[in-house]
Amino acid sequence: MWTLPPSDTVLHLLSYVALTAQAMTAALAAGRRSMDWAGVCMLGCITALGGGTIRDVLLGHYPLVWVQNPFYLGLTAVAAFVTILIARLVHRLNLAFLVLDAIGLVVFTMAGCDVAMQVGASLTIVIVAGMITGCAGGVLRDILCNDVPLLFRSELYASVAVATGLFYTTTFGFSLNHEVWTALTFVFGLTLRLLAIRFKWEMPKFVFSGDPR
Amino acid sequence: MWTLPPSDTVLHLLSYVALTAQAMTAALAAGRRSMDWAGVCMLGCITALGGGTIRDVLLGHYPLVWVQNPFYLGLTAVAAFVTILIARLVHRLNLAFLVLDAIGLVVFTMAGCDVAMQVGASLTIVIVAGMITGCAGGVLRDILCNDVPLLFRSELYASVAVATGLFYTTTFGFSLNHEVWTALTFVFGLTLRLLAIRFKWEMPKFVFSGDPR
Amino acid sequence: MWTLPPSDTVLHLLSYVALTAQAMTAALAAGRRSMDWAGVCMLGCITALGGGTIRDVLLGHYPLVWVQNPFYLGLTAVAAFVTILIARLVHRLNLAFLVLDAIGLVVFTMAGCDVAMQVGASLTIVIVAGMITGCAGGVLRDILCNDVPLLFRSELYASVAVATGLFYTTTFGFSLNHEVWTALTFVFGLTLRLLAIRFKWEMPKFVFSGDPR
Repeated sequence: MWTLPPSDTVLHLLSYVALTAQAMTAALAAGRRSMDWAGVCMLGCITALGGGTIRDVLLGHYPLVWVQNPFYLGLTAVAAFVTILIARLVHRLNLAFLVLDAIGLVVFTMAGCDVAMQVGASLTIVIVAGMITGCAGGVLRDILCNDVPLLFRSELYASVAVATGLFYTTTFGFSLNHEVWTALTFVFGLTLRLLAIRFKWEMPKFVFSGDPR
Repeated sequence: MWTLPPSDTVLHLLSYVALTAQAMTAALAAGRRSMDWAGVCMLGCITALGGGTIRDVLLGHYPLVWVQNPFYLGLTAVAAFVTILIARLVHRLNLAFLVLDAIGLVVFTMAGCDVAMQVGASLTIVIVAGMITGCAGGVLRDILCNDVPLLFRSELYASVAVATGLFYTTTFGFSLNHEVWTALTFVFGLTLRLLAIRFKWEMPKFVFSGDPR
Repeated sequence: MWTLPPSDTVLHLLSYVALTAQAMTAALAAGRRSMDWAGVCMLGCITALGGGTIRDVLLGHYPLVWVQNPFYLGLTAVAAFVTILIARLVHRLNLAFLVLDAIGLVVFTMAGCDVAMQVGASLTIVIVAGMITGCAGGVLRDILCNDVPLLFRSELYASVAVATGLFYTTTFGFSLNHEVWTALTFVFGLTLRLLAIRFKWEMPKFVFSGDPR
């Protein structure tokens, strides 16, 4: 008899794919700033693992994932390094990477919610932890590249994480099978993000030009 | 018989006012960078709650205030969001917000000193913890807005926090009523900051133009 | 009979020298941004102590060094302040400061490895902890000065830390005297860094000019 692999295994594999994709797009950002090879690898690690790290530091949830399992450091550093060799290809596969990044956003958000639930955080904090896990790595990348974080300015991204977290945490209100709900959340979040990219859904911007002080 | 409310309650209420004010001025800074609505709310939360968060992470003092009491997140996010609607008004009330921000500086500094005393830190660290609580949120705001932190360049701010902390911690040397001393510290710190704004008291600047390396 | 002082004492003294040197060069960076005196002192403290702080926060290793021993704060703040008075001299002694900074890189890397070994981290994490201790302070300095971190762009620095950490940790494979091995690591790391400066050894750069998105 054939059975589906458990959703946790699938999520685990997807998270590897997403970490790789985030490290690779961070490497392109590093290349735009002419960083050296070591800097490229570091920026890849920081971008891909930074969201989970900030979440764990804020929740006091030790040891950090990559401290316990340094394989993550190796994976993201290698992914960033390989990008140096195949930069043109990665750039041309822009669309594929947008999809992989969207997968990462959703998978990391769910993982962040899981961690916060484990430490018994309240519902609000569960959703915030999911959002931080999904988004904060990109904020670190932009700070290190000396940009105003894209997160604060571009299409729905943090909002997708929040919506995904909300959808995911309602699992407790219903007595649904965990596998089913995980899959539903994944499809919901990914669809939302891809629609946001496709139709350039953006939050309204707040443009204010008064002088400071 | 009429009694004064206990100073802790007053400080608590003042801290809500100050959190709101800091989130609102951060929202204006976000508007100057054309951030979207989600970014405005996030920058409001990070600016208002960032100082206490950095202090607690550095002292290993968990759980963080806003993790334990997510109401703070809601308050600052809503304050930032409302600012989008009334930006002109907030900008015109610049002076009132400077006063509210000064109240925040003093109240947060005292709260930071209290936390460090509770964990048994030494006198120096108590004052540093107060300063971090009062000032670090604004540093995070400026980093995320891609500016050199104002804190390092403008009128007495960190120095007011240090003076306030010094004044506050001497309470242990005297056998004064805690309420009285809290009130005195508040008046002292607020006066110092308002005088610094009014008369543009600045630290001397260190201007150095040698080439790096 | 004359004996050598134990290596730990020597390293301890060298680390004071290195902290002072890093605070002083950070003060020059602050001067290039026209920071005020308080900002100069803060940037000195953050640069000199930031690497160890980030390491300890990531490893959950509390209390932080400077919280337990605030003397470090005083030392680095005073060093930064004194730099304001003797900026020209410090700038002219550029070469000496490069050597002192290199000593700091090696000493801090070894200290970071020691801390990670004490908490029982794996070999990879020991080396990463050493690298963070040696390098992250400078990254914080560049972020606060609103620059793309030099670490990611200039001569071998992080790589020297990694090589030093690798060399240092192999001590466990051999049954060598700890003193001897510490001294050998110090000479190895320092030589590597000074050669990198002298001959402008750089990592290859990754220059990529594709548009984002």
